[in-house]
Amino acid sequence: MKTILGREIPDYIEGYGHVRPFQGAFSDVGVKTRTAVKLTSVIPNDQKVLSSLEDALDKLNITDGMTISFHHHLRNGDYVLNKVMERLAARGVKDLTVAASSIFPIHAPLVEHIESGVVTGLVANYISGPVAEAVSRGKLKKPAIMQTHGGRARAIESGELHIDVAFLAAPTADNYGNINGVYGDAACGSLGYAVADAEYADKTIAITDHLVPYPAYPIEISQVFIDYIVQIDSIGDPKGIVSGTTRITKDPVALIIAKRATEVIKASGLVREGMSFQTGAGGTSLAVAAELKKIMQHEGVAGSFASGGITGYLVEMLEEGLFRSLFDVQCFDLKAIESYRDNPAHQFMSASMYGNPHTKGAVVNNLDIMILGATEIDTDFNVNVTTGSNGVIMGGSGGHSDTAAGSKLAIVVTNLMKARLPIIKDKVITVTTPGDSIDVVVTERGIAVNPQRGDLLEKLKMTNLPLMTIGELKLLAEKITGVPKGVETSEKIVAVVEYRDGSVIDVVRKVSSVS
Amino acid sequence: MKTILGREIPDYIEGYGHVRPFQGAFSDVGVKTRTAVKLTSVIPNDQKVLSSLEDALDKLNITDGMTISFHHHLRNGDYVLNKVMERLAARGVKDLTVAASSIFPIHAPLVEHIESGVVTGLVANYISGPVAEAVSRGKLKKPAIMQTHGGRARAIESGELHIDVAFLAAPTADNYGNINGVYGDAACGSLGYAVADAEYADKTIAITDHLVPYPAYPIEISQVFIDYIVQIDSIGDPKGIVSGTTRITKDPVALIIAKRATEVIKASGLVREGMSFQTGAGGTSLAVAAELKKIMQHEGVAGSFASGGITGYLVEMLEEGLFRSLFDVQCFDLKAIESYRDNPAHQFMSASMYGNPHTKGAVVNNLDIMILGATEIDTDFNVNVTTGSNGVIMGGSGGHSDTAAGSKLAIVVTNLMKARLPIIKDKVITVTTPGDSIDVVVTERGIAVNPQRGDLLEKLKMTNLPLMTIGELKLLAEKITGVPKGVETSEKIVAVVEYRDGSVIDVVRKVSSVS
Repeated sequence: MKTILGREIPDYIEGYGHVRPFQGAFSDVGVKTRTAVKLTSVIPNDQKVLSSLEDALDKLNITDGMTISFHHHLRNGDYVLNKVMERLAARGVKDLTVAASSIFPIHAPLVEHIESGVVTGLVANYISGPVAEAVSRGKLKKPAIMQTHGGRARAIESGELHIDVAFLAAPTADNYGNINGVYGDAACGSLGYAVADAEYADKTIAITDHLVPYPAYPIEISQVFIDYIVQIDSIGDPKGIVSGTTRITKDPVALIIAKRATEVIKASGLVREGMSFQTGAGGTSLAVAAELKKIMQHEGVAGSFASGGITGYLVEMLEEGLFRSLFDVQCFDLKAIESYRDNPAHQFMSASMYGNPHTKGAVVNNLDIMILGATEIDTDFNVNVTTGSNGVIMGGSGGHSDTAAGSKLAIVVTNLMKARLPIIKDKVITVTTPGDSIDVVVTERGIAVNPQRGDLLEKLKMTNLPLMTIGELKLLAEKITGVPKGVETSEKIVAVVEYRDGSVIDVVRKVSSVS
Repeated sequence: MKTILGREIPDYIEGYGHVRPFQGAFSDVGVKTRTAVKLTSVIPNDQKVLSSLEDALDKLNITDGMTISFHHHLRNGDYVLNKVMERLAARGVKDLTVAASSIFPIHAPLVEHIESGVVTGLVANYISGPVAEAVSRGKLKKPAIMQTHGGRARAIESGELHIDVAFLAAPTADNYGNINGVYGDAACGSLGYAVADAEYADKTIAITDHLVPYPAYPIEISQVFIDYIVQIDSIGDPKGIVSGTTRITKDPVALIIAKRATEVIKASGLVREGMSFQTGAGGTSLAVAAELKKIMQHEGVAGSFASGGITGYLVEMLEEGLFRSLFDVQCFDLKAIESYRDNPAHQFMSASMYGNPHTKGAVVNNLDIMILGATEIDTDFNVNVTTGSNGVIMGGSGGHSDTAAGSKLAIVVTNLMKARLPIIKDKVITVTTPGDSIDVVVTERGIAVNPQRGDLLEKLKMTNLPLMTIGELKLLAEKITGVPKGVETSEKIVAVVEYRDGSVIDVVRKVSSVS
């Protein structure tokens, strides 16, 4: 069986099930269902605060084969997943599926639970560090399922991803389960990725180190979705949760890329009143924001919104009137947290509102300009941000596919070569985002426009930008680096890459060299 | 068939269906289901703003027998329900059920649609004015269904009340359907009663007279729940939406009642750190707040929250530090709207979060003190706020039953006689709220404690308050007024009174004298 992109995928994958192959970014639309939810009603005088995590695990009655979920707002400072898994392992529970919105290096102890069979399934939008390596080595019994941020919300809301128990790390909680991320030692700001878990899991428990008098405010997740609350000493390490500041790159090559990307944006005609913009927190991405800011200021343009994970840099643009509002699914730095807490124009969005394709309209649908990264791009503009050039999992879509699909202008910014390897290939090892969603690739040596965007190409021809075909760009790099040899993979599928609509866009196979 | 209160109810009511008789305030608890929702996904470049209401009605395809819904935040200034119904009547649609959270005198044109068969069903939490009279006269084909604020949210979320199309009056909306009530000519503040409609209707349309650039903020109801937006000239008359200020009564009898109610509160021991409080917007209710405020200030007590429909008076208490937060399901005056807009401690709550008994914990569950009104009370403490002493519908539960059930101390404040008729009866004409939920009745002549609250009676005996039994209180009034003759009713059931859990607590029968 082949996807519309020509990738070979089995029609049935052991441990995953029947495969619905990817058929195009908007092939699966129309009438959709948000699933029914069972809940246990709470009456006056019922107590939700439990004495300990052990007490909670007794009440939650987690049994072999269940799916438990976590959100990743505490990023590489998260203590909650590890603490919960340690206790569950000690209880002898087996065959759990961990549905975490993302997995970071701090979650290394999960590898042991994978090896011991406590965890046999993993569903995440992004996996990095030791767990990613363990999955790539084929240690997980079932293939990992890699989703997008919007796709995860869709999967949960549709009932495709059923969560038995959601563990919600809560920087602040009151005794009835009202939660926010803006106060407490582990403050992380927006809790956008946790919303679907809270709303759709059979049971939900807030784990907090900052229990405040009722009612907490602001309320990001309401008491009506929380069964229990447990207080522990610490839910996370602030140093791993947010950076103090996010900085623009000083690398001269990255600055050239950023400048060119901004010229592409300008030439596209999208720098206009009401424009919208999203970029990541990486140095090059922020440099694009810095360049774009100059143009917006120069042209006196006020945008409508910036969205996504929010940095202090976007906050400054908001405060300077360059955007009317921010949509924040997670805060990347302290300045973003403070702004989100204090400025009503800096708004909350759930992962579903952000990028779920099966709602009445996600925020990405209104996005004009999206700045994206890539570990590989192929000559069909397909992008890989899931595996490294060695075929080992080192990330995942996150919001990549969601924003690429929604935005009017999706720009991949990347060095033409990284670690002496070319970025552009005939075929990417893993397709994360389909080429149809990518409009242009900007490198320090040249710019390639997707042939489907003849309109954009015409506009860019009016500039002095170094335009070339993606094939030419590929050759340019290969002249310097030579043609890299392909990665050899075995038949074993270690991860299934789901597109945002739940179809399978690719699989990750076990790399022969990493055994 | 009898309810647990001994009211005779048929086990099947034509036009309503099988009856589940009321069995006690918390008899229907445990595992509950929030129903599945079908929605049509929206993709980039889909336009949600339609050119006119006519265009919208074409798209919405409303056919005979459907249920359409409205919220009542524009109260007696609402133009939306009338405009929509006028257009639907012109289109010849028949047999509609109107599920409006409340019906006011301004909705008088609905009577014509009832008479002509355009509307044959009505579901509401509160009905006053000409529509109430028309229902009482038996003009509606099916019995009206009268719910509570929390019960309506429960009915919608459970799927019991299925809404085909929700019409959402939106004081502010953007072109993707983000809605708030705090800006625009028809600003009304919180849109708490509209949330379940938006989330669970098959189709939703925002009708606004204030279309703002994307994205609107704050967002009370998200774009992900809105199919279409239509702009019209005016959605409501500000004079009918909010009062400029809400005032405390100057009536000396009401002030005595308020003072005594506050002494009851004080004696109950509930004036303490973290206390919570709710009262209505009526003069006597506000007078209780004023008295309570003095005591809280005197004792240096800081409460946790006040809730419900919010008035400027509660805003002042928030601002003076007497409460840490307000939970606002609707704003009664301009001061409340401004506070709700500007003060993060003044928080939004949906009707479901307010009072739905089938969530993981409504706000009413945490309520200490609730001040309630009554048109009649019987010697079992059952309260009627649905029908007048003539048996004609003049209101409904609203949040009466929800708050009475949830609160630790539910106090009915009322004059012992109104319009020369005694308020306390052997049996109320219609039971709205069961006596079990009522703790004490405070009148200007005496105070009666529910015998189930022996603990409270003991505390009140330590005061000089004029305690008596409810029977003694009844006799006291009858000595002055004589025993009123009962209202004669026919067999015909004109309204079914649903308790918050969806069981039937009573029925309203057609009054013989109003034919």
